[in-house]
Amino acid sequence: MATIDPQLDQLCVNTIRALSIDSIQKANSGHPGLPLGTAPMAYALWTRFLKHNPTHPGWPDRDRFVLSAGHGSMLLYGLLHLTGYDLPLDQLKQFRQWGSQTPGHPERGVAPGVETTTGPLGQGFANGVGMAMAERHLAARFNRPGHTLVDHFTYSIVGDGDLMEGVAAEAASLAGQRGLGKLIYFYDCNHISLAASTQLTFTEDVAQRFTAYGWHVLHIADGNDVEAVAQAIAAAQQVTDQPSLIVVQTHIGFGSPKHDTFGVHGNPLNADDVAQTKKNLGYPSLEPFFIPDEALKHFRQAIERGKQWEADWQKRFDAYAQAYPDLAAEWKRLMSGQLPEGWDKDIPTFSPTDKPIATRAAGGKVINAIAARVPELIGGSADLNPSTNTALKGAGDFQDPRRPTTDKQGAVGGEWGYGGRNLHFGVREHAMGAIVTGMVLHGGVIPFGATFLTFSDYMRPSIRLAAMMKLPVIYVFTHDSIGVGEDGPTHEPIEHVAALRTIPHLTVIRPADANETAQAWRIAMTHRGGPVALILTRQALPILAPKGDVARGAYIMADAEGTPDVILIASGSEVALALEARDKLAAKNVRARVVSMPSWELFEAQPQAYRDQVLPPEVTARVAIEAGVPQGWSRYAGTHGDVVAIENCFGASAPYKIVFEKYGFTAENVAARALKLLGK
Amino acid sequence: MATIDPQLDQLCVNTIRALSIDSIQKANSGHPGLPLGTAPMAYALWTRFLKHNPTHPGWPDRDRFVLSAGHGSMLLYGLLHLTGYDLPLDQLKQFRQWGSQTPGHPERGVAPGVETTTGPLGQGFANGVGMAMAERHLAARFNRPGHTLVDHFTYSIVGDGDLMEGVAAEAASLAGQRGLGKLIYFYDCNHISLAASTQLTFTEDVAQRFTAYGWHVLHIADGNDVEAVAQAIAAAQQVTDQPSLIVVQTHIGFGSPKHDTFGVHGNPLNADDVAQTKKNLGYPSLEPFFIPDEALKHFRQAIERGKQWEADWQKRFDAYAQAYPDLAAEWKRLMSGQLPEGWDKDIPTFSPTDKPIATRAAGGKVINAIAARVPELIGGSADLNPSTNTALKGAGDFQDPRRPTTDKQGAVGGEWGYGGRNLHFGVREHAMGAIVTGMVLHGGVIPFGATFLTFSDYMRPSIRLAAMMKLPVIYVFTHDSIGVGEDGPTHEPIEHVAALRTIPHLTVIRPADANETAQAWRIAMTHRGGPVALILTRQALPILAPKGDVARGAYIMADAEGTPDVILIASGSEVALALEARDKLAAKNVRARVVSMPSWELFEAQPQAYRDQVLPPEVTARVAIEAGVPQGWSRYAGTHGDVVAIENCFGASAPYKIVFEKYGFTAENVAARALKLLGK
Repeated sequence: MATIDPQLDQLCVNTIRALSIDSIQKANSGHPGLPLGTAPMAYALWTRFLKHNPTHPGWPDRDRFVLSAGHGSMLLYGLLHLTGYDLPLDQLKQFRQWGSQTPGHPERGVAPGVETTTGPLGQGFANGVGMAMAERHLAARFNRPGHTLVDHFTYSIVGDGDLMEGVAAEAASLAGQRGLGKLIYFYDCNHISLAASTQLTFTEDVAQRFTAYGWHVLHIADGNDVEAVAQAIAAAQQVTDQPSLIVVQTHIGFGSPKHDTFGVHGNPLNADDVAQTKKNLGYPSLEPFFIPDEALKHFRQAIERGKQWEADWQKRFDAYAQAYPDLAAEWKRLMSGQLPEGWDKDIPTFSPTDKPIATRAAGGKVINAIAARVPELIGGSADLNPSTNTALKGAGDFQDPRRPTTDKQGAVGGEWGYGGRNLHFGVREHAMGAIVTGMVLHGGVIPFGATFLTFSDYMRPSIRLAAMMKLPVIYVFTHDSIGVGEDGPTHEPIEHVAALRTIPHLTVIRPADANETAQAWRIAMTHRGGPVALILTRQALPILAPKGDVARGAYIMADAEGTPDVILIASGSEVALALEARDKLAAKNVRARVVSMPSWELFEAQPQAYRDQVLPPEVTARVAIEAGVPQGWSRYAGTHGDVVAIENCFGASAPYKIVFEKYGFTAENVAARALKLLGK
Repeated sequence: MATIDPQLDQLCVNTIRALSIDSIQKANSGHPGLPLGTAPMAYALWTRFLKHNPTHPGWPDRDRFVLSAGHGSMLLYGLLHLTGYDLPLDQLKQFRQWGSQTPGHPERGVAPGVETTTGPLGQGFANGVGMAMAERHLAARFNRPGHTLVDHFTYSIVGDGDLMEGVAAEAASLAGQRGLGKLIYFYDCNHISLAASTQLTFTEDVAQRFTAYGWHVLHIADGNDVEAVAQAIAAAQQVTDQPSLIVVQTHIGFGSPKHDTFGVHGNPLNADDVAQTKKNLGYPSLEPFFIPDEALKHFRQAIERGKQWEADWQKRFDAYAQAYPDLAAEWKRLMSGQLPEGWDKDIPTFSPTDKPIATRAAGGKVINAIAARVPELIGGSADLNPSTNTALKGAGDFQDPRRPTTDKQGAVGGEWGYGGRNLHFGVREHAMGAIVTGMVLHGGVIPFGATFLTFSDYMRPSIRLAAMMKLPVIYVFTHDSIGVGEDGPTHEPIEHVAALRTIPHLTVIRPADANETAQAWRIAMTHRGGPVALILTRQALPILAPKGDVARGAYIMADAEGTPDVILIASGSEVALALEARDKLAAKNVRARVVSMPSWELFEAQPQAYRDQVLPPEVTARVAIEAGVPQGWSRYAGTHGDVVAIENCFGASAPYKIVFEKYGFTAENVAARALKLLGK
């Protein structure tokens, strides 16, 4: 640790502040309140504790820092620039401008050192919990006595807004239950939110709430006290079996004429107030973007320190590789993102002569076949393992080692500790969504999260961010239609497949049977460029002969002889229905082609020639069939086509076969609609 | 209160249990665990405290009861049948069958006495908070010294799953902050969730957490102790300035051979276990659906008691009507759902010669014009009042009267108490969604909730349920596209309009200018059959001459002379763009019609003749323009049309005019796309 020099500290803190307000002023847009208030805690953390390597931001054992309150992005950009990341001052001058590395809210992949995209409140909080879970898991998997390969903290600055969001509450409860001691969060407690004093909305005792969750809670009365912050971080690091929340009393917009008002939350100060703020802070220059040499020099020590940290770690890794060559090779494989040789060897093929099987059940077989060969596959459900069929058999539970070793219900308990691969999220879909994102962001694991499709709505904000970051998260959404039956409309997704398809970069796959499910899992494991959502049935489906390539999004499942009179296009459970309807049409001398279309996104990525081969433009009599809202199917059914779907109503509670029948999902009705289309 | 007869109590409790397991067994589907465990608390509440009138379930001053843990629906159906609601035993025998009044989860409107549709966890918890807020508000508005018109409790049974959900956490924090003393919740603490012991997922100290929120927390060590439950309810009623949580230790599946296991949560017992359960409970008969006469007689006292309660209330109302005839008339108007005479008189008309104005700003003027004449209009935002323009001027804040009377920031504080009409939800979009639903369910108010469109994702599960219940909730979603600009992709909704349009019974309106915004608000205030979402811009838009009827969903905004060569179809901010493009096309002798299409749902409800008039089938050259994903526009653009939209990417951070340009939303590009379509 560097020698303590309070004056230099103050200058450095104010440098962060000055850069922030200058950038925001130049953009004439942004949120000065947070950087002004939180600069001291960020400074103490980044210069005295945060283990990072600015010249190699991807070093795997770095500490993670998440700015959950993403509107304070200039705080982060300032820190990145000052500590020597490849983010030139010119980029700070381009804050919030087209094509810059400094967008309004931090975006992963745009500036180096941004660990996750934040802005929508509460998400970063929960991402951090996922990172800390991945860290503990890899530590359990790889660390050996005398050889510590994985050992780092996850830090975050969270604001009042983050802590009001339910997703943060869910994640906090889970982090406490799992005893994630390497998680250290700062609560920027400034009593002001965007629109008002928190007296109007947020008077709960946050410290007591987090104590109730099982967190270790510390207090700092004066957020400008760099030493107090440093002492709190040191104390938090000592508590290894509980996450820590450091409650820091701060002043929003500190130093500015608008300090302690909500007006400073999200609006630029104006030129006069910028100058006045610098004067109030005793900053040595009013020149925009001025950085004192001594401050820069002090910050830039992070570069050498970072190199040293990584070099030390590399030495440890080399010793580890000597002692545990297999594990070291495995580590390297993980970090490269390569799947193990033969990872998909055991994926089963299902035979049409086997009895019907729900795609969720088929998925359960497939996921276990993969999991046995892919140790980085880790995941679980929001309290629905028995229903989503997503338990990884024999892989243990990811659990605080102090929890009872065997659950009364027979589930494996704590003997696996953090090395277990079954994640029990509880009834916390939203936190699950953000946590699996955080795990991917951390690296070294391939996580999945499962729940009923109808509850995908609960986690939608997290899915959106994973898609925005193009992360390979896997979602398993079962009970995918009115096929849910008795549980009724609340549990029957009608609009969710369509709604998921609206999210850019998300690939939605709704397989038609067990074999398409196996293919869908292959795609999920290898797809890059965004998350994949697997949409699986509750009810059993006949097994179809594996006829085509799910990776192409759609293919001819059963063709007509010669040019088809009509094309029946379906996804998921409706493909078998389309095949039945085809038989009925054949009996009336109507030639129907059946196209299985498990994924719009994958189909759209095919060359036009392939798409025209599957859906020849000259065949305009088309019937699309999907047990959900029709939205978007016109693209494939065309102006002259028809869509058998569910419109202007929700589902109903009854045995599922009856519900399907009442809603018109019968071969008779599909055939009749096709005949009508043909004027017959 | 009835004389205490422990034996009769026990028989009645077991009658609830027996009916539940019989119905579930007959359906061979359902959740026996909760009714078996919670029957005693439900019995104590329903027979000794709950102020309700089974023969008039809609009596306005009844206590509200919400079964947040909706999977325990048979508990509620049993209570409704036993206490004399119009729900015959035959309906219980039809549990979970097509067309019955007893669907898998309770659905409002299907059986009398079901206050809200529950099942998706956490929602009922937050609905109840909204009901309690409506109650306090109406009490402040109507009660007068010596005349109490509104004075009732809101009760709920919530489970572990409810309390793990973030939406419940948000609502609980808000309920504590607002000091909602008439809210009394039972926490069915049985340590078992669907998939596991809560040891695996949920070890937080719930009582401490709720204390931190400002709730009054009570404990019952034995959930079978009816007297203890009764005493706790009485104690909770005495605490009038805090909501109460009664933590009841129960045994899931009590009395059954599977008691205390997660297997009993969601699966029927089987015939043998049903019999064994009845034996274990000492139930007098093994005959399915047997109801002991003395138990029925005891339960059915609710009928007379309910009539008496309402008669007493009617007397109070009559006296009130004598003393305050105007208020009594106003009350009657509210209960009838009629808007006041001349409610829309002050809605402004905007002139094309006025300067451009954002539709959110126009919305702010309109909402205030309405609010001044419609006192039941009440609402607010999730900490975004200054941005969503939804503050009701001079209408005060709905606040705990003990909170500081004037906020430091200048907002009106506690002097209005619960009579204030501005609802400050904090950064709690999801709770906001469920709370406004709860307020509509309560009746007597017209609530709205506002946030940025991008955060509509956070509240989607609540929007879905409001739509399922066809409730007239109003959502105000501003900052509706890449027009957000500098805040960047996290804050720029790309897919949200399309995603909202997938929800059945939800009407989405995206007005093109200030005048369409005024029309949209008229529709929102009068539309029945489901919620309405208003989609408004951040950026200023030119004011177009009011040319057509937004209520028809789409209309010709500017026509071609003669048959158009091409139709440009747009919504919201893109309508002005289409008009510009039309001019450019006219310069090239291309006749373009511009159709403003603010609402698909309203357009689809029009007769085919009108739809064909607006979009003549013979004109197949069509360009749809919307600054969002193209999904669904093919329905209107047609197979031969084109869609100018945002596909396969998210937004970007930069000044909004630049973002629009970079994404192709320019008159030049739209005109070029139209020309290309025409082969020119």
